[in-house]
Formats: sequence, structure tokens, C-alpha cells
Amino acid sequence: MTGLPSLSPLLIEQSVRAALEEDLGRAGDITSQATIAPDAVASAVLSSRELGIVSGIPLAHAAFRLLDPDISVVPEAKDGDLIEVGRTIARVEGNARAILSAERVALNFLMHMSGIATITSSFVKQITGTGAAICCTRKTIPGLRAIEKYAVRCGGGSNHRFGLDDAVLIKDNHIAVAGGVTEAIAAAKSYCGHLVKIEVEVDTLEQFNDALAAGPDVVLLDNMSLDELREAVRINDGKVKLEASGNVDQSTVAAIAGTGVDYISTSRITIAAPTLDIGLDVTIRGD
Amino acid sequence: MTGLPSLSPLLIEQSVRAALEEDLGRAGDITSQATIAPDAVASAVLSSRELGIVSGIPLAHAAFRLLDPDISVVPEAKDGDLIEVGRTIARVEGNARAILSAERVALNFLMHMSGIATITSSFVKQITGTGAAICCTRKTIPGLRAIEKYAVRCGGGSNHRFGLDDAVLIKDNHIAVAGGVTEAIAAAKSYCGHLVKIEVEVDTLEQFNDALAAGPDVVLLDNMSLDELREAVRINDGKVKLEASGNVDQSTVAAIAGTGVDYISTSRITIAAPTLDIGLDVTIRGD
Amino acid sequence: MTGLPSLSPLLIEQSVRAALEEDLGRAGDITSQATIAPDAVASAVLSSRELGIVSGIPLAHAAFRLLDPDISVVPEAKDGDLIEVGRTIARVEGNARAILSAERVALNFLMHMSGIATITSSFVKQITGTGAAICCTRKTIPGLRAIEKYAVRCGGGSNHRFGLDDAVLIKDNHIAVAGGVTEAIAAAKSYCGHLVKIEVEVDTLEQFNDALAAGPDVVLLDNMSLDELREAVRINDGKVKLEASGNVDQSTVAAIAGTGVDYISTSRITIAAPTLDIGLDVTIRGD
Amino acid sequence: MTGLPSLSPLLIEQSVRAALEEDLGRAGDITSQATIAPDAVASAVLSSRELGIVSGIPLAHAAFRLLDPDISVVPEAKDGDLIEVGRTIARVEGNARAILSAERVALNFLMHMSGIATITSSFVKQITGTGAAICCTRKTIPGLRAIEKYAVRCGGGSNHRFGLDDAVLIKDNHIAVAGGVTEAIAAAKSYCGHLVKIEVEVDTLEQFNDALAAGPDVVLLDNMSLDELREAVRINDGKVKLEASGNVDQSTVAAIAGTGVDYISTSRITIAAPTLDIGLDVTIRGD
Amino acid sequence: MTGLPSLSPLLIEQSVRAALEEDLGRAGDITSQATIAPDAVASAVLSSRELGIVSGIPLAHAAFRLLDPDISVVPEAKDGDLIEVGRTIARVEGNARAILSAERVALNFLMHMSGIATITSSFVKQITGTGAAICCTRKTIPGLRAIEKYAVRCGGGSNHRFGLDDAVLIKDNHIAVAGGVTEAIAAAKSYCGHLVKIEVEVDTLEQFNDALAAGPDVVLLDNMSLDELREAVRINDGKVKLEASGNVDQSTVAAIAGTGVDYISTSRITIAAPTLDIGLDVTIRGD
Amino acid sequence: MTGLPSLSPLLIEQSVRAALEEDLGRAGDITSQATIAPDAVASAVLSSRELGIVSGIPLAHAAFRLLDPDISVVPEAKDGDLIEVGRTIARVEGNARAILSAERVALNFLMHMSGIATITSSFVKQITGTGAAICCTRKTIPGLRAIEKYAVRCGGGSNHRFGLDDAVLIKDNHIAVAGGVTEAIAAAKSYCGHLVKIEVEVDTLEQFNDALAAGPDVVLLDNMSLDELREAVRINDGKVKLEASGNVDQSTVAAIAGTGVDYISTSRITIAAPTLDIGLDVTIRGD
Repeated sequence: MTGLPSLSPLLIEQSVRAALEEDLGRAGDITSQATIAPDAVASAVLSSRELGIVSGIPLAHAAFRLLDPDISVVPEAKDGDLIEVGRTIARVEGNARAILSAERVALNFLMHMSGIATITSSFVKQITGTGAAICCTRKTIPGLRAIEKYAVRCGGGSNHRFGLDDAVLIKDNHIAVAGGVTEAIAAAKSYCGHLVKIEVEVDTLEQFNDALAAGPDVVLLDNMSLDELREAVRINDGKVKLEASGNVDQSTVAAIAGTGVDYISTSRITIAAPTLDIGLDVTIRGD
Repeated sequence: MTGLPSLSPLLIEQSVRAALEEDLGRAGDITSQATIAPDAVASAVLSSRELGIVSGIPLAHAAFRLLDPDISVVPEAKDGDLIEVGRTIARVEGNARAILSAERVALNFLMHMSGIATITSSFVKQITGTGAAICCTRKTIPGLRAIEKYAVRCGGGSNHRFGLDDAVLIKDNHIAVAGGVTEAIAAAKSYCGHLVKIEVEVDTLEQFNDALAAGPDVVLLDNMSLDELREAVRINDGKVKLEASGNVDQSTVAAIAGTGVDYISTSRITIAAPTLDIGLDVTIRGD
Repeated sequence: MTGLPSLSPLLIEQSVRAALEEDLGRAGDITSQATIAPDAVASAVLSSRELGIVSGIPLAHAAFRLLDPDISVVPEAKDGDLIEVGRTIARVEGNARAILSAERVALNFLMHMSGIATITSSFVKQITGTGAAICCTRKTIPGLRAIEKYAVRCGGGSNHRFGLDDAVLIKDNHIAVAGGVTEAIAAAKSYCGHLVKIEVEVDTLEQFNDALAAGPDVVLLDNMSLDELREAVRINDGKVKLEASGNVDQSTVAAIAGTGVDYISTSRITIAAPTLDIGLDVTIRGD
Repeated sequence: MTGLPSLSPLLIEQSVRAALEEDLGRAGDITSQATIAPDAVASAVLSSRELGIVSGIPLAHAAFRLLDPDISVVPEAKDGDLIEVGRTIARVEGNARAILSAERVALNFLMHMSGIATITSSFVKQITGTGAAICCTRKTIPGLRAIEKYAVRCGGGSNHRFGLDDAVLIKDNHIAVAGGVTEAIAAAKSYCGHLVKIEVEVDTLEQFNDALAAGPDVVLLDNMSLDELREAVRINDGKVKLEASGNVDQSTVAAIAGTGVDYISTSRITIAAPTLDIGLDVTIRGD
Repeated sequence: MTGLPSLSPLLIEQSVRAALEEDLGRAGDITSQATIAPDAVASAVLSSRELGIVSGIPLAHAAFRLLDPDISVVPEAKDGDLIEVGRTIARVEGNARAILSAERVALNFLMHMSGIATITSSFVKQITGTGAAICCTRKTIPGLRAIEKYAVRCGGGSNHRFGLDDAVLIKDNHIAVAGGVTEAIAAAKSYCGHLVKIEVEVDTLEQFNDALAAGPDVVLLDNMSLDELREAVRINDGKVKLEASGNVDQSTVAAIAGTGVDYISTSRITIAAPTLDIGLDVTIRGD
Repeated sequence: MTGLPSLSPLLIEQSVRAALEEDLGRAGDITSQATIAPDAVASAVLSSRELGIVSGIPLAHAAFRLLDPDISVVPEAKDGDLIEVGRTIARVEGNARAILSAERVALNFLMHMSGIATITSSFVKQITGTGAAICCTRKTIPGLRAIEKYAVRCGGGSNHRFGLDDAVLIKDNHIAVAGGVTEAIAAAKSYCGHLVKIEVEVDTLEQFNDALAAGPDVVLLDNMSLDELREAVRINDGKVKLEASGNVDQSTVAAIAGTGVDYISTSRITIAAPTLDIGLDVTIRGD
């Protein structure tokens, strides 16, 4: 996947508005109300305290703007950029109370999303030169699916399906009920429209051979050994896309990529991602 | 803090409903629709693949129930319990399509919340026997503030303020604008109602002395050395509650607790928490 | 496509609730309040006044249940059934005010959805025996996308993509900007994840040849003559799926199907569908 | 009814936002993201491919503006205008991705609403010179009640009640329970406030005479023959407003109007309306 | 107006849910969580501390049920009943935490709505024996329009229009722009559908004569003296309904009613209504 | 409490939008649509008809702006100001229809909020010179909690807790279940985080002594005689904050304040507050 997706402005506004309402509660930012004059003006700098890939600048921007449309936010980086420690991400200027009230929400989005982008990027780096891509799963924080998948793209990763509805992924339970891999894939082909891709999960080479014969678009090779993966790649000979999952971490990913699979999926880059430390330094002027 | 809080049923329903809508999209779970008969019935077992503290059972329960109120969910553990590998958390029985459609949402809540409870618990264990408590911050995943703070409690942690509105936390910017620690605390006391606590953040012992004189409810000692913390505890002599933050991790937390502070706050137990691996094993019967 | 999809209960509840709120306004059903005792009980029969395919029974059910959970709704048909004139669709029994208040919403869903299912079915009948399927487009009533696509399935039709996000459809504007069909398809392949299908729209055989060479999943042949369609089918030789659109109506659809294309898409079965006349006959008993 | 109503800006925004969210889903317009540079600029022209009455320009405008407030939309017609084939409705200029992403939603509103306005207008033309007006019913697409009633006005039609709460319409079931036409009207007069009109539906002249004696504001003559309608007009002698319904179509409406009734209501102009074909022609410039 | 309206269950649920969410905030009822065992059971009695008309029982019921569907609520009175001091309104039994958490919301609705019903009733009593009715206005608490108008009915009052959309009320500004009372009424008649009533506000007898000639449904006589009101009644001679407003209070209302007007409207019974003191007495048992 | 709080712009928009939607219904302001040209322009002046403290100007402003962002609203007063009869609060200029359509919502907020501010102010005046402050309770209009508490501040009052979640208030039921005042306070201290204040309600001096010994932050003295209050103040000797409630009205509040308590809480300043009469005088120009 190349090129960055863009999050819909409607999605950004809805997510950031909900986060601000969650933080402001009923009484708002009582500390700023108590200690800062209503007209005081502040300058602030968003910058990273860690080396990493930044993601979430449009959401941070929205956090400030939703509390005061007159706040100026001038980005000095863009989502997907590698940011050195201390590098300025954006300059913020305007009403001091509003900037401080939006600070935490802006940073929570930036830290979580940049954390995802950064760890994705580090997985991607491990497999440079192979033909494989790193991709996410549906193991995402409830409510942040689209935002986390966007952050994965910022880190150079690729996206798996976004939900239960935009692609078929046949797993062991479906196969058991359908009466076999062949039957399950046939059922999916018969059931789905022509713009839906069909993936099937297998965990043995026997299942893989059956699956391949039934003509899915993608086969997910779950928890296979490197030897099994290599054998699957050989058997497949480019017919369908192959995705590997299970036991994917920084120490194993290069070897898995080396087997020749097309995609390696892992939840470590979404629901289990660490954060990237990003801060806001503020200077407030009287009024 | 002792005793588990209860999440409001309204909050649970709203959060789980949003997560299900996010995952089902417009067309719903097309894989299950294609491969599983509408009336097929399934039995399933939620169990942990890792040792840890479970949290989120009521949300998992709601995920199944919202898709089909006739699904039976019988918990065999309760939030806050330490769960061995393989231990059953709950038994689920009912419509097979609905169970498979709700599976990922149920697990995403359980894995994230149990991850928080488990890491909180491991911090808490490090400081057993000291008088200190571990507490969270406002560095939480946007949209999940109350749910993450509940999970912290499940792990034996304590809760900091829930938002900008339920307590005052005076930081360097507020102090700078107000004209000093003394002035900022006085402003907060004058501004706030009698049911609002006032905390002030300091990073030197000089500031600490000024803060103490102004009579806040809590002082946050940020990024102080162990020696400074000990000195602050000595000076304070029990007058106000003391909270330490900065450089808190598994290797430092015991020493920090040993200084005699009352609370140690860290974002590692919320926005930066790892997940706990929990799975659903399903058996589907025809119909 | 075989087998009926199921609409998510969350989607049904949300759509029907909004429709009831729209009809009840602020003061509710003032006619029933004025003329019918609060405890009066009614029996009612939903039946069709026209021959057609029924669709929307779960939504009609929800309309009654949301106003009074004690109302009993017993279906005597199921979505997708061909209904003779006068045939009972469901029996409804319970509080008289609630039944009359929900009547119009229940019927508006049934009439619109059954109208879609019925016209889809009549298109499908025209092409029986060919290998082609009838499918819908994104020309749908705003707010009813998933519901209309479900009704198309009830009539034996197939579904195109559900939105801008679940499949790629490259049109003339995209081709123009990308610098040609080849470039546009390459861009989409590079940009999208491995579970996204790529369709490209062409209106000449020259464009078709270019498109084919670039390897999309589906080609949409727009407004082509029957000769051109046949030629495209010949050239394609089963390599990709072919979809025809433009000038599709009851008099042309069989000939188009006869060319050998796989899919024929038309907005006549969604946004431009007629209704099916369905009514509710009520008998009210005092109390 | 003369003069066009104005839809509330809050209603427009809410309806269009929901339609955009429905179309953009979680990942947004992936085709435009893949093939069009983020900064590319487009010019576009909205124009009609059929002769008809246009309706919905403010909603089309909102669709573009909600995705990018910097898009310029310059109308060259206004709602209610008769539009020749090829006539420009509005010129749109701005960000190319946003214009293409909003296109379908803008057109779906315009095509549905203009379809309603156009068929209403053709009914209205049939009865020119009589004293009758064409009006809509509560048979409307769920969720679009106010928007469809606005489109009816754009076509020269008149509006019946907007919901169950803003006027009384006594039908056979209400009459049966209340114990007769006289009793039902008396109940409604006693129950309702002084700003609520009362209409009663009758299907025989006997009922009509009873109804008239009870003093409603309007009588709905349902499924009566032309002779019966004429007789009802004669008996009424201008006392109350008379509305005819049942078997209303393009071939019967003039004769019905010729009987002297004041209003003719039909669902053919709302839930069963065809669409008007409107398109967007786009020219995209690099950047 | 006779007979009590019924509030839609959808409106009740939405209003009570919002009120509970407002009161529970993020952390819920921390006092009950801290001091009451999760399984403790309570019995409680809702009773009035003042003589008055009760209104709002269905909303109180919903408050308890939304927090715990197993709570039993048995009413011993119904909305519109005159309640003596100490008289039991309902008995509540079930989970102790849930009952205490819902208490304030239940009481806030009951106290506000019963306050409205009670003051309405006392106005109604003042004019017993005259032909006049007391009615409300659009001066209502934002967000509670339908609920307050329902409470007015519980007190024996009548309802004016529910919003700007369900009836016409022409005031001085409309008259000034339209070019006179005659022109304004003509404009409204031409503009509106046949199920909309038209009222015009006048403040002199000259305006009243003009208004009457133009044939509105209702004339609002604003701030007229008793002599003027009597003269208007005489001139009108039963042709249209007459409504008086301005300077309406407990000491003037009987005299105003004595002039022969049909309706007397006042905001004192809605936005300016006092509360009725209602309480909940709870007995909690261990578990 | 000194200094005015600021309501969050998100809260203002949400509340005012809901109120406008409630008033505009489905068809909007049909009177203005019928009688006023779409382009007519109006000037208007918001002014008070009574002496009082104004509150709600930002909400009135939002009402106009949400219907037409081009309307200019220039305040000539600010929330918290004492306004003479006839004094201009704000000048409004712009589209005539929009101004008239927003008028009632703007005034309903202003009248209710200014009524609260004004009565609060009159209570505050009664106790000038004592050390006591007037504060509100949770007896507020459902849905307006934060807005009413803001208005209390505008009148010089102080705020009690905003909900069940931001402070502990232990009442008789909690004490009974917990096994005594001492046990209940201990339970709360053990349960709650370090930023939550604990208040306990007592109604005898015996209870007060027990409560004091357990070390709460605040004690609420409910329905005590003046002698008892004085005795509690004496015993307390400044240790905790004391709040008095019960039988608080304009005739008793000064005496209660004279006993030396710190806070006097009453619901008379929120749910039971009268309104302040505020009006809008409009001049409309043709166009």
C-alpha cells in the first residue's frame, strides 16, 4: 500500500468532539477557569519526546478548533513523517484557556496514533526487501477502528478488512458448520456479491490444498511453522494471496517474511500498540 | 481503594452498541450469513490464554445480549479475579451467528480491559507493604475514560480525577499565569465549590514548600529524585496527600513507594497498557 | 447470490425508532388518544393488496414492539416469499392505540422494501437461464442504503458495493487524473489492502482492452451496444467478471443478459423502485 | 399553497451528514484516495438529463460543504424551477477528492426530491383551472418525511399533516371504537387543543352526512365514485373542506378535480415517486 | 380538553436516559458503591409532602427500570390524581444501589411535572363554571416542551401549539411586514395546508375587527382590558375562537374568564411553574 | 466562589440545537415562511422587562447563529450583570425569518437562567457580611444541570456537586446500611480516590459528633434549629466545612447564615426558580 488515506472530516469531528465532551464533563476545565483570565492568549508547541512516526495531526488540530475556531494551528510536519526527538509537530496560538482545555485530548490521540504508526513502521523495517507487507487485524480498540487503521497506514502498514461486512474471512467454526473448506468457500462465493473478497483461514497444509482448490482470493496461514509457510508458498505458486498470522513479533517477522508470503498480520500494531511520547509546551501571555 | 466500582448499565450499553455497529458496518457479518444456518445453535467458552486479572465481563455479556437477547451468558469468574491460563471466564450459549458476530467486540473489550487490570495489578504487587497506592491519569484512550478507570480498579489501582471538571490540578502554566503557587492555589480555593479537591504540581522542593503553605488537598511531586521525594515526605509530615509521578515503571515503582508518598500515578496502566490474550472457543451444532 | 442476508437488530431498531419518532412528533398519535380507550385491545392482519415479494417483516415487527413490547406479532410469511393478493403476512395483537400508532411506519417500510424486492424479482425473471445476475448500485434513498440492499436480495438480486469504502470503482474522472486506465488500476492496486476488489468502468472496447491488461477484478461496461458487450465477453474469455450498466429496463434486460455478461446493474430496483401495496386490517375490542 | 417553504438548516445538516456517513463508511472514498492527488482541484456542473422541476439544491450544497467548507457552490437555478434537459443547476468548484466523494449523496437527494417535485407538478398541471389542490399523505420514505413534503411544495403541491401529532384524522377504526362518526368527532373536539384541525374519513354519503353534522374542519372522501363526490360537494355547499383520495392517478385526477372537491391526496407523489435523472460532470485539474 | 394524553414510550426513554446520564456522569453513584453491598435490596415509597396533582409517574418508573429492569414499581396513583400529603404514589422494590442512584432523577421529573399540573389545576379551579379553558404557551423549559405540555393536561389545562410548525400564530412583526392584518392572514391561508389552523394576535379592537374580517381560526387578544375583552366577545358573536393573554395570574384569571373568552394562555403554568415537594422513603435490607 | 465559569462551547451548541429542533419540528416556522420574504432583514433588541441578573447570553447568541451564521449579535451586557428594566442586553441584526424563528428559544434560555441568577443573587444579598455562601443542590431540571449551575454562579452563588460521581454525599440510607456514620465515612474513604471529597448528612448533634470524629471534608446539617446549628459551629471550631439545609427561604436565610455555617444549600434557586421577564423587540425591513 502506498499513499496515505485521508480520514473523513465528519469522522474526525465526531471522534474528537466525543473525546472533548468526555474530558470536559459538566463543569469544564475548572483549573483553567480558576487561574487564567478569559482573554489570556497562549503560544504552544507540539513536539515529540521520542523518535517515531507521527500520526493524528488532523485530530489534534480539530481538538483545538472545536473549543475555539479562532485558534491557529500551523503544522510543521505531516502524518507519516519520521519525527526526531524535540522536533516541532505544530505551532498553536490563541485563547489560553481553550488551548489548555484541549491539550490532553489532542495529545491522547497523537500519542496513541503515533504509537501505532511507530511500531508498524518498525515491523515494516524488519521486512524491507522481502515482498511481504505488514497488516492489521480486527483486534482494535472499540470505537477507534478506522482511526487505528489509518495510523497503521501512516506507519507503512497495510489494512485488513475494516469490519465483518466488507470481506469474508472463513475460520474453523465456519468450516466445521459448512461441512469442509470446499463447501464453506462455495457457500461464500454463492452468497456474496462480486465486489467482496473471500479469505479462508487454514492451519495445516492439507486444509491449504483443499482451500486452494476451491479458489478463494486469499488464504490465511495461521500459526504455521516456517517450513510449512515455505511449502504453502511453493504449492501456491502465485495463484492466490497468502497471509501469515500467529507468533508474529519483532524477532520472528523477518523470517516469516522470508518464506515468501504476501502479508503478515498482527494485533501488536493496533490494540496492543505502545504510545509515542508527545508533549505540548505552552507560553501564556497576560491579555 | 477497596471494593469494585460498578459501571452504569447505560454506559455499558452505549459503548458496546457503538463497538458492534463499528464492526458490523452496513452489511453485517457476511461470513456467518454465508456459512451458518440462521437457526444453528452454538456453545462457547470464554477463557484466558494468559495469567492475569480479568476485567470487562459485563461488557462481553452485553455484546452477545445486544445481538440476541436469548443468548445465555453464565460467568464463571468475576471482574477483578486472577485467572489462570485456560480458566473459563464465561459460558455462552445460543444462536450461532449472533455469537460469532459478537465475538470480536466482546474479546476486544475483555483483552484491553484485562490488560489494564493485569498491569495495574503487577504494579500494585511491587509496592505491597508500603502505604502507597498506584493510580491512573487522564492519559486514556479517547472515548474509554470511564471504562479504563474501572479496569484500573479491577487491578487494585486507585483513580485520579475522571476529567477536567471534577478536581483541580494546577500545573506550571497555571502557576505562571496566576503569578505563583500561592496565588494559583488561592484562586482555585476562591473559585471552586466546597466539594472540589485541589491538587498542585511542583517539581522542586522550593515550590513544594510554597505549595504546602497555601493549603492544597494534594501535592503532585513531578519527576523528583528519590531523595527529593523523601525530603518532601519529611517536610509534609502528613499534612496533605502526596502523589509522585514521572519515570514510573516496574523497576522504579517500589523505590518510589518506599519514600513514603501516598500515591504514584502513571499512564502505563491505561493508554499504554498491553492486552491480555483471551479467546472464545466455539462448538456449533446444526439445528 | 443465494441465501437471504439478515439485517442487524441494532440497525433495525435504530431505523424504526427514527421513523416512529418522525411520525409521532411531540404530541404523539392524538387521534387514537382522543378516540380509543388506553386499555382497548386490537387484532390486526397485515396483508398484501398486490402480488409481489414481501420484504421488511422484521422492521414491521419492530415498529409494533418498540411502542409496546407486549404486542404479539406472528408472521405467516417470511421475507423473500411471493405473496398472493390478500395473503396474510402477519397477525398482530395487543394494545389498540399502539397498533394504530405504529401502523403507518410498519407499512411504509413494508411497502417500500417489498416494492424493491418485487421489481428486482421481475428483472431476475427476465434473465432466468442466462448466467447473469441483477444487481443494485449506490443510487439509493439517503439513509436506507443497507435496508434497500437487503430488499434487493429478498427479490433475488445481488449487491454491488455498499459504499465508497468497501470496493474500488474507477470511473472516467479517476482515469483522466491518473493518466489512463492502466495507471489508475495500478494506483488502486498499490493503494488498497488485499481484501478490496477493484472494478473499472469503461465505455469503449479500446478502454476495455487496456483495462483488461491491467488486471482488475471486475470491469463495468457502461452504455455499450449489445454487439460491443458480446465482443467484450468474447475478448475477456472468463478472465474477469463483467458488469453491464446503462439503458437497463424490463424490455432490454434479457438481451443484455444474453450477451454473456455476469452482472447487470440498475438503479431502477432501489431509488427508483415503485411500492407494493400492503395494508393493515384492524379489529378493535373495547377492553 | 403559494410560496416555497424553507427547510431548517439544522434538518439539512443532520440529513446530509447521515447520508455522507452512510456512503463513506469507515475507510472513506478509497477510489479517489488511490487515484487523485490530495490537492487536485475540480470544476463540476450539476445538470439535469431530463425535463423536470428541480428540488434539493440546498441539500446538494450541504453535501459538498460538509466534506470541505472551501468548496464553492454557485446555483444557477433554484428549487421549484422547471429545468430543461442539459440546463445547469449549479457550478461546483474546489477540492477534487471532496467533490467526487460527495457527488453520489448530492445526486441521490436531488434525484429523489426532483422526482417528487416533477410528478407533483404533472398532477398539478392536470387540474389547472379547477379549484382543487394536489396534496401528499403520510406514506413517505421513513426518515425523509419533511424533505419529501418540501419537495411536494416545490412541485406546486400542498401538504397534508406532517405526522400523527399535528392534526386529527379519524378513520374507520377510530369511528368503530368511538361508537360512530358523531361520537368520534365529538371526542376529538373535546380532547384536542384549539389549534388542532380535525379531519374525518368517510366512504359513504350516509357517513358523510353524519360527519358534516358533527362539524369537523375537513372531510376525507375515500374511494368514492365521481357521482358520489359531486353529491358530497353539493351537500357540503362550502361548509367544510373536502378531500378526495383513492384511485388517484394521471388519468383520473382531472375528473376527480372536476367534481369540485378542494384537495386530492395521493401517495404517488411521495413514497411511490420516480426519480429525475440529474448528473454531475467533472473536470479535474492536476494541482 | 378531556382525557389524558399519553407520552410516547420512546420520548420517555430518551428523556429519562439523558437525565440519568447527566446525573451518573463518568463514575456513577460513588456514594452507593462505597457504602451499599452490590446485592442489597431496598423497599421504597414515593409519596407527596404537599397537596397537589401528580404528574410524571411513567418517567419515574422509567428511571428505576433503566438502571435495573428487575426493579418492581407498583403505582398507587395515576397521573392527574389529586394527592393528599403523605399519600403513596408508588411502591418501589429491588436492587438498593439502583434505587438510590435513580432516586433524584425520578424525583426531579415528578416534582417539576407535578408542580406544573398543580398550578394549572389551581388556575382551572378559579374559572370553573365559565366556558373558558387555561392553556399553555411556547414559553417552556428548553428540551421539555412535550413533557411540560403533558403535565399541563394532567392539571386540567389545554395545550396551545407545540412548536413553530404545527399552527400559525401571526404577531405584530408578521403583520408589519405583510402590510396589515388582512394581508398577513391572507398570506397564511394561501401558504399553509388545509390541516393547519391560523391564529392572529391583536392588541386593539380596531385590529380585532380587521382580523375577524379576514377569517382566521383563532384571535389572540393580547393585554386587553376586561372591557375590551368583553367588547371583542360581543363583536365576535361565536364566529372564531378567542384567546386572551397578558397579566394572567391567580387574582385576575377569573375576571378574564368572566368576559366570555374561550382560552386564557399563560406561561406561569410551564416555564415559571413552582415544584411540588415529593420524596422517596427507603428501607434497605442487607442481602 | 469568585469569577464566572465558562460553559463549554460544545455544551452550548448541543443544548441550543436540541431546543431549536424541538421548536422548529418538521415543518419549521410556518408563520414566518408565510408572511416574511426570505431576504427580509431585521434589527432587534434583547432587553429586560424586570430588574435582575442576566444569564444565558452565550446561549441566546448561539440560537441566532445556529439558524443563520451571518446574523450579528452584539452584547451590551455580560452574564452576571445587574440589568435595569429596559436595559439593552444585546443587539441582533440579520435575516428576519431566522431572527424570529430563534427568538423563543433564545428567550426561554435567558428567562430561565436569568431567573435563577436573580433569585440566587437575592439570597446572596440577604447574607452579605456573614461568612456563608449560598449553594445549589442536585434538584435541577432534567437535562439542564450544568446550565443551571452556571446560572447560580452568575447570581453569586456557589456550586454543590454536579452529579452522583464527583463527590460523596452520605445520607441516612447509606449510614443505615453501612452500620453507622463512622463506618460509612470509613467505607467512603477506603473506596474513593484521593481527589474526591466526602460529605456526610446528619440531623442531630449526636450524629454530628460521630461524623466529625470520622473526619469527612464537609458535614451537611439537615433541618437543624438555629440553636443546633450554632452549637455545631461551636463544636466544629473550623475543623471541617459546615453546610446547612432545610427550611431555607428569603425570611430564614439570614438567620441561618448568622449561625456561622459555611454553606447554605437550597433547591429554590434551581428547579424551583422563577423566571426573569426578557423580551425581543424587532424591526423588520423589506429587502
